[in-house]
Amino acid sequence: MGVWSLVVRMPRRSVVNLLGLGTRAVSLLNGNSLQTFHSSLKHASSLPKAGFKPEKVAVVTKTTRYEFEQQRYLYAGLSEEDLKHLLALKGSSYSGLQERHKIHTNNVEHIVKSLRSKGIEVRIVKRGEYDEEVVRWADAIISAGGDGTMLLVASKVLSKDKPVVGVNTDPESIQHSSHVCLHPRSEGHLCLPVRYTHAFPEALKKLCCGEFRWLWRQRIRLHLEGTGINPTPVDLHEQQMSLEQHSQAHRITTMDSRLRTGNPYESFSKPNLLPIRSLNEIFIGESLSSRVELNSIKPHVKLLLHRASYYEISVDDGPWEKQKSSGLSICTGTGSKAWSYNINKLAEQAVEEVLNIGKSQTGLDIPLNREFIEKVTDLYNESLVFSPDDRRMFFSIREPIVNRVFSSSRQRGFASKVSVRSRCWDACMVVDGGTSFEFNDGAIATISLSEEDQLRTVDLEN
Amino acid sequence: MGVWSLVVRMPRRSVVNLLGLGTRAVSLLNGNSLQTFHSSLKHASSLPKAGFKPEKVAVVTKTTRYEFEQQRYLYAGLSEEDLKHLLALKGSSYSGLQERHKIHTNNVEHIVKSLRSKGIEVRIVKRGEYDEEVVRWADAIISAGGDGTMLLVASKVLSKDKPVVGVNTDPESIQHSSHVCLHPRSEGHLCLPVRYTHAFPEALKKLCCGEFRWLWRQRIRLHLEGTGINPTPVDLHEQQMSLEQHSQAHRITTMDSRLRTGNPYESFSKPNLLPIRSLNEIFIGESLSSRVELNSIKPHVKLLLHRASYYEISVDDGPWEKQKSSGLSICTGTGSKAWSYNINKLAEQAVEEVLNIGKSQTGLDIPLNREFIEKVTDLYNESLVFSPDDRRMFFSIREPIVNRVFSSSRQRGFASKVSVRSRCWDACMVVDGGTSFEFNDGAIATISLSEEDQLRTVDLEN
Repeated sequence: MGVWSLVVRMPRRSVVNLLGLGTRAVSLLNGNSLQTFHSSLKHASSLPKAGFKPEKVAVVTKTTRYEFEQQRYLYAGLSEEDLKHLLALKGSSYSGLQERHKIHTNNVEHIVKSLRSKGIEVRIVKRGEYDEEVVRWADAIISAGGDGTMLLVASKVLSKDKPVVGVNTDPESIQHSSHVCLHPRSEGHLCLPVRYTHAFPEALKKLCCGEFRWLWRQRIRLHLEGTGINPTPVDLHEQQMSLEQHSQAHRITTMDSRLRTGNPYESFSKPNLLPIRSLNEIFIGESLSSRVELNSIKPHVKLLLHRASYYEISVDDGPWEKQKSSGLSICTGTGSKAWSYNINKLAEQAVEEVLNIGKSQTGLDIPLNREFIEKVTDLYNESLVFSPDDRRMFFSIREPIVNRVFSSSRQRGFASKVSVRSRCWDACMVVDGGTSFEFNDGAIATISLSEEDQLRTVDLEN
Repeated sequence: MGVWSLVVRMPRRSVVNLLGLGTRAVSLLNGNSLQTFHSSLKHASSLPKAGFKPEKVAVVTKTTRYEFEQQRYLYAGLSEEDLKHLLALKGSSYSGLQERHKIHTNNVEHIVKSLRSKGIEVRIVKRGEYDEEVVRWADAIISAGGDGTMLLVASKVLSKDKPVVGVNTDPESIQHSSHVCLHPRSEGHLCLPVRYTHAFPEALKKLCCGEFRWLWRQRIRLHLEGTGINPTPVDLHEQQMSLEQHSQAHRITTMDSRLRTGNPYESFSKPNLLPIRSLNEIFIGESLSSRVELNSIKPHVKLLLHRASYYEISVDDGPWEKQKSSGLSICTGTGSKAWSYNINKLAEQAVEEVLNIGKSQTGLDIPLNREFIEKVTDLYNESLVFSPDDRRMFFSIREPIVNRVFSSSRQRGFASKVSVRSRCWDACMVVDGGTSFEFNDGAIATISLSEEDQLRTVDLEN
């Protein structure tokens, strides 16, 4: 399902209802969604003056599950045979992973060939090697993977002039996912319609002759100040692959400076703008588990601990409020369809129960048939989603814990600026579920939107 | 706030509404809560024939934050001075932690003295040293800490004849919690009324002369079968304190056998009953972060990764359904006030919006004033809580991800048996937020209640 098909169903007007601004807005919902869609489309995208013809394109490729397992085990000194054995024990098929991997690499080759046949200079970059230098070099960047890869690629593009295009290199993976735990992002909402994966020359042609629309997606910027900060961003997916390699890198970038200063955390007296932008959401919360790395030859043991996160929050420069919850999510319009949606959406079961109680309390004849419950549930859930070009963020306090100490005030809503003061001891700030920063007691994050942080991407007809 | 004060507000009848069993049950809610309370109390507890006079009592003490930090840093070869410095950097006061620690130890001394003055043989056991042998030795066990300690202590008591009593050794800690992230459990719902902390002899006297009620709390048992299981339970709180110490232990208990068999995970052909009972809830989900242990002298780096959990679930031997979500929670009546409550409760904001949509869709005059919204919200949230002696479990699929592949069927409800087949690659099964088992692809868990698994604890008037 593409971005726009969803926007059609989710007029931005309806979201005001979340803030309880009365029934009028709701009544607006009926019928005129499409009209709202068109008006929002005007903001969201525009026809390019001329076609788009980049000279240098970087193709950033995802790490397949096959590569993940291979690097993880082979690095630990295991043979290909051991790998097959271990995967089997985990219920995964070695040949199955190989097949998915082959599909991905074939699609990458197809993309690269198509670009070169147009005389475009191409650099193929593995996700783990993708950095600022690559971004500087390229006129445009193609993310070859799923939405996860697209999010990481976009996060490092700070200029709104450099287009980023996502191509889903394994469109069938959702059906084949019975052995991986996929994030909703993986469904390719951020990528071109899947048919272009196999027909990339056609997509390229449309780009060249301007048969497309620019789509600017609003993004979130982060300022950090105070103590308890580890400003070294870490790609969690890469990090997963080899803790050793990662900690090496980390020791060089962070630990030495820490030891020099004798200070385990760097401290910023004034707000420090992080060199990363968020397309989906920022999530702040206690780390929920810890990995115990035994000797790397042996499989690691992983543990899960649920601990509530304690922090203070100020919305749009309002008063600081203490909060205790299972974390805090702050999303863009793009991200309002991802994790934030799952945090906030209601099941029909809950809606039925609320109407049920309302009915018994008022004696009013509120209908409780399946069709009506579905209608109300859909309207409610649709109101959670807003347009990718919307200039507002939406914050959600996840599973708030309310008691005499902690305020039960607004659990979520729109904001143009959110400030958070960490009171946690082992917390992280996670950008788009992919890049993590330590965010412990003493750290203050300022989360906001800026005109200049829009991501330039393309909207191609299917 | 004690258990019963809550039960008063939450008649068990009302929970049926969660399953959408119509309006009648709701109307029953009005007024007669207290009566329901008494009837439920009859099930829940009973007057002991004689007084309760144990000869041997084990006092299991929590690990204070001060001990936590001390062991963590001193183990890493840091001096007391370094510790002060590091705590300051984390925004924590060394003297503050020392003060909380002193309060705890004083209260433990008070408890032990009181017991010995009655001629009772006492063994003081640190949480980390608490094991089956201690349970066998004692006639009764006192948990000296918060609810977290009580949960761990109870989890290892398999017999319903051995009483477990919780004493909150730092009743003020909630007010002083500005530098720790507390779980809702920490408020002491499972412990004696806090006034007995300082007046333990009085509690003891009441126990001896039978001025109390036995309270039997239903608990959950776990059967595991298949592969992808690491059956070695790990105390997450202890594990946190020293990964090195832990991994040592772990290497001995698990890894050697793994290497012997060349099999990283043990495999059970038939269901294997785990030697642990759950008083609050079982949570199954992907590990949400990974800890990178650099050299132990240096502070560790912790990362957070949100990944959805993929599994199959069968409720009460019904058909297997694929699910993708941020985990799965299965709780007891006791646990229905803890994490499960926070997962399922609605904010007034959401209730208002649902009624708002209902109103605009029906044109009915549904009132939307603060008072009414509060009333409906309270009734809804109260219906999530049920009695500790209830013979049912309540399952909640957390943040379900619905798409064409995954069923959007019942998101939660009561069950007497839940079976779960893991399809995750790095998942854990966590008992009461404290003990963790690996639960990966190939593993099947059967979660149920049994008469014989009740926890015998006491209900003392305040």
